[in-house]
Amino acid sequence: MMNTQLTISPLMERAEKYFSKKEVISRTATGIYRFTYGEIGKRTRRLASALEKLGVKRGDRVGTLAWNHHRHLEAYFAIPGMGAVLHTINIRLSPEHIAYIINHAEDQVLLIDDDLLPLVERIKDHLHTVKAFVLMTDHDELPASNLEPLYSYEAVLQEGDPNYQYPADIQENDPAGMCYTSATTGNPKGVVYTHRGIVLHCMGIGLADSLGLSESDVCMPVVPMFHVNAWGLPFAATWFGTTQVMPGPRFTPQILAEMMESEKVTISAGVPTIWLGLYQELERGRYNTSSVRAIVCGGSAAPRGLIKAFAEKFNLPVLHAYGMTETSPLVTASRLKSYQQELPFEAKMDLYAKQGMVVPGLEVKVIGPNGEVEWNGQEMGELLVRGPWIADEYYRDERTADAFKDGWLHTGDVATIDEEGTIKLVDRTKDLIKSGGEWISSVDLENALMAHEAVLEASCIGVPHPQWDERPIACVVLKEAYKDKVTKEELLAFLTPQFAKWWLPDDVVFLNEIPKTSVGKFLKRALRDQFQHYFTVQKETK
Amino acid sequence: MMNTQLTISPLMERAEKYFSKKEVISRTATGIYRFTYGEIGKRTRRLASALEKLGVKRGDRVGTLAWNHHRHLEAYFAIPGMGAVLHTINIRLSPEHIAYIINHAEDQVLLIDDDLLPLVERIKDHLHTVKAFVLMTDHDELPASNLEPLYSYEAVLQEGDPNYQYPADIQENDPAGMCYTSATTGNPKGVVYTHRGIVLHCMGIGLADSLGLSESDVCMPVVPMFHVNAWGLPFAATWFGTTQVMPGPRFTPQILAEMMESEKVTISAGVPTIWLGLYQELERGRYNTSSVRAIVCGGSAAPRGLIKAFAEKFNLPVLHAYGMTETSPLVTASRLKSYQQELPFEAKMDLYAKQGMVVPGLEVKVIGPNGEVEWNGQEMGELLVRGPWIADEYYRDERTADAFKDGWLHTGDVATIDEEGTIKLVDRTKDLIKSGGEWISSVDLENALMAHEAVLEASCIGVPHPQWDERPIACVVLKEAYKDKVTKEELLAFLTPQFAKWWLPDDVVFLNEIPKTSVGKFLKRALRDQFQHYFTVQKETK
Repeated sequence: MMNTQLTISPLMERAEKYFSKKEVISRTATGIYRFTYGEIGKRTRRLASALEKLGVKRGDRVGTLAWNHHRHLEAYFAIPGMGAVLHTINIRLSPEHIAYIINHAEDQVLLIDDDLLPLVERIKDHLHTVKAFVLMTDHDELPASNLEPLYSYEAVLQEGDPNYQYPADIQENDPAGMCYTSATTGNPKGVVYTHRGIVLHCMGIGLADSLGLSESDVCMPVVPMFHVNAWGLPFAATWFGTTQVMPGPRFTPQILAEMMESEKVTISAGVPTIWLGLYQELERGRYNTSSVRAIVCGGSAAPRGLIKAFAEKFNLPVLHAYGMTETSPLVTASRLKSYQQELPFEAKMDLYAKQGMVVPGLEVKVIGPNGEVEWNGQEMGELLVRGPWIADEYYRDERTADAFKDGWLHTGDVATIDEEGTIKLVDRTKDLIKSGGEWISSVDLENALMAHEAVLEASCIGVPHPQWDERPIACVVLKEAYKDKVTKEELLAFLTPQFAKWWLPDDVVFLNEIPKTSVGKFLKRALRDQFQHYFTVQKETK
Repeated sequence: MMNTQLTISPLMERAEKYFSKKEVISRTATGIYRFTYGEIGKRTRRLASALEKLGVKRGDRVGTLAWNHHRHLEAYFAIPGMGAVLHTINIRLSPEHIAYIINHAEDQVLLIDDDLLPLVERIKDHLHTVKAFVLMTDHDELPASNLEPLYSYEAVLQEGDPNYQYPADIQENDPAGMCYTSATTGNPKGVVYTHRGIVLHCMGIGLADSLGLSESDVCMPVVPMFHVNAWGLPFAATWFGTTQVMPGPRFTPQILAEMMESEKVTISAGVPTIWLGLYQELERGRYNTSSVRAIVCGGSAAPRGLIKAFAEKFNLPVLHAYGMTETSPLVTASRLKSYQQELPFEAKMDLYAKQGMVVPGLEVKVIGPNGEVEWNGQEMGELLVRGPWIADEYYRDERTADAFKDGWLHTGDVATIDEEGTIKLVDRTKDLIKSGGEWISSVDLENALMAHEAVLEASCIGVPHPQWDERPIACVVLKEAYKDKVTKEELLAFLTPQFAKWWLPDDVVFLNEIPKTSVGKFLKRALRDQFQHYFTVQKETK
């Protein structure tokens, strides 16, 4: 067979050639714009040649700080197309971490959105490698700025060559992209995506049994393009000639609902919070969302209630998926097998609430204390993944050794796998409570507690215990109206029928607030620190 | 990214693991049998280990002479799974050519169907490399035979290990399969398929925009498994957990129609002749074919009339596709773009009658006398293809140089490409008529002639001409009832309104028969030899 390399520029070339009339609808700071793939293709070539003029060379990293819009899409193809490396920077990291990753990646040029300019200006003195800044602005005039040199994206494009030819000698294992993922402690960890990994991931996304992305779709990635390549959708959608709708900066649920209706979106993708907001907006307004065939939900577990409510109230199918920065990201998709289609509605909802089955091309296994767990939906273990779009290291980072062992990525996610091979995430390994040689899911306890009408937030942690290694305690924040009106005995009584006796927390502690990370997740580490002597001290004072 | 190799055994392992209850329905010489993927998986492992016991080593070729059934499917996975090479032998070749390709491939073992045993017995003295014969029979007792040693497939399986582990060190560029394609002159030419090529081709087949093969499909490959891996369907269908229906030896249109109905087939694939037979059967009987979503038609051009008749009469969509042995085979599929869905019925039929657009992953171009042709659906040129599932040589064959040049496969097919990038085949390069620097499609002329009620067969050839290089003449066989009742003037008058004047044949010659190849195609070379002096001699005798 021909030694044809799986590289990225042919994806855009296919869109240019075969889908030149199809559109990319882009919302920017100033409005909604429509471009054809014919136009996007030429603009992308201009960008690649302009970046070469700015001194970007093969293998150089080019950073982007940008929302989802057509210019970011052009960067997605121009940068790897010319042989450089697209480094999408997560703007939600702290300024210190943003500076760290720009320096660690050694970004040569930064492409920056209007509203993110102040962020870069604030850290500019800490940036050691950046030689030029390009502002992705709709305005003709550049704002006053302390960044130097600062160019206008559109002016740079004007200097570029619309007939630029992508180099033909890029190898499929060459780096194409980078994304850093925040770590529990320490600096973010970098993942490098190769051309081959991205192309194979695109094929994975196009398979009828995963997302089945197709030319006839209208795809709106709400998941940010600075977050695992917007789950690979911009690459795949371009390749297949899919119409793309890019919701731009600081969108609201209303904007999403309006664009869904007006552009007849068929598939969209985002995290549960986004869909919760959309659900509430759909309840408020009157939108026609009948074009939508799939609401892809990932990033964290989609609540069963939300999946069911979307189905019952709006006939909108939530397609639950799982992945992480290290996995490009698609690992599992929750689709029913043909013989599961006959199941009753509630049983289907149970399945849709799981993360689903591994997509073709990858392998997973779930490793418990005694090796691979039984496929019974009960036994818990860490989820391991391998395959051609799974990272095999962190970029120049000694934490590689913790996550990549024996050819498998150790995800740090705890899962069960049922008789049909369906994965359900139950916890993070570091949050799992290990009691007397058995495992207790902190997430299951929390979800059960948060279903109580009095509970605003609940976080369950394993606390060192002299006899059982660890025992669970529940940290609970009550809703304002219930403060001092609910006892721990009531909450434990509420949990009792739902769990085995040994799963029940040994204590319920009422707090005013659960400490959180910068992205709003419970900071269980802080709670564990706070309560580490809970049982030992109690014992001593007895 | 992980250096995960794209190899074949994980495809079967996925079916075993995740689709162990799904079925393969297999028609053999004695009846219809049902196996689960759980069973097929174990039988495949048994076969691999049994072949090792028979002395098959890494890289050895193992030949099959077999129809479409479960045992052939097991061979599809056991042989490449163990690191050997699956050589599917086209039983329709002449016995001399079959002996040639077995020797040329150096097959070590042959797996043979009951009814093909006499074929092998006849050539056995000419086979130089085969060390063992295995009969794929349903019967417990072996028939008397001069083949030595001859084993029973089921007995061999009994000796095999159902827990055999496939070697994990197979590389994706290792050979996995072989298929020989008949040549116009000389011996058949061998194409070697790699693991990588087959896996990527499977992904191509699973893409929503090509065949969209999925777990929910019931797939019946009618195209023989000895013909370009039954177009890759057994590999892909197994990977995706698709139910497979294998129609076995010497099926009839009635058998196909019955299996389609009883097994609720959703997608089937075969050559136009098969579908013509099925169409007639559907007209005769009363079959429920409402489960069918696609009748994939390839191998030669599907007549527009047949596509239209299937659509109008039975609401059955014919999915026209194009490929060849050298291309694994899928190159194009005739699907409408989203904005073409609005076209009127007849315009859609026009598009469905074309071979369609190149599938994601491959590149095509059409090269005429002056380089790449315009995308106007008129200008003709040779179709060139490249990509990761396209061969780059013929196996140990100096004819490689004719077909593989500058990184492209020169298909020998003449095509046009329209404004939307849709390919339409119009001829073979060697049959194209070159008249005064312009090209005339012999196929277009033939099709027009064969639409005349008096014409049974027509073949148009280019004959050397002193002034125009070549001029077309038409060789026509009249139907019995019209013999001596139709003149050449009448036929030319019939053609005149349909073509430019210079396209019209300079003469119509009535023959009793058109010479044909062993597989029933017009042998135009013989006609060209016969008429090579037609114009020069005519001139001289004037």
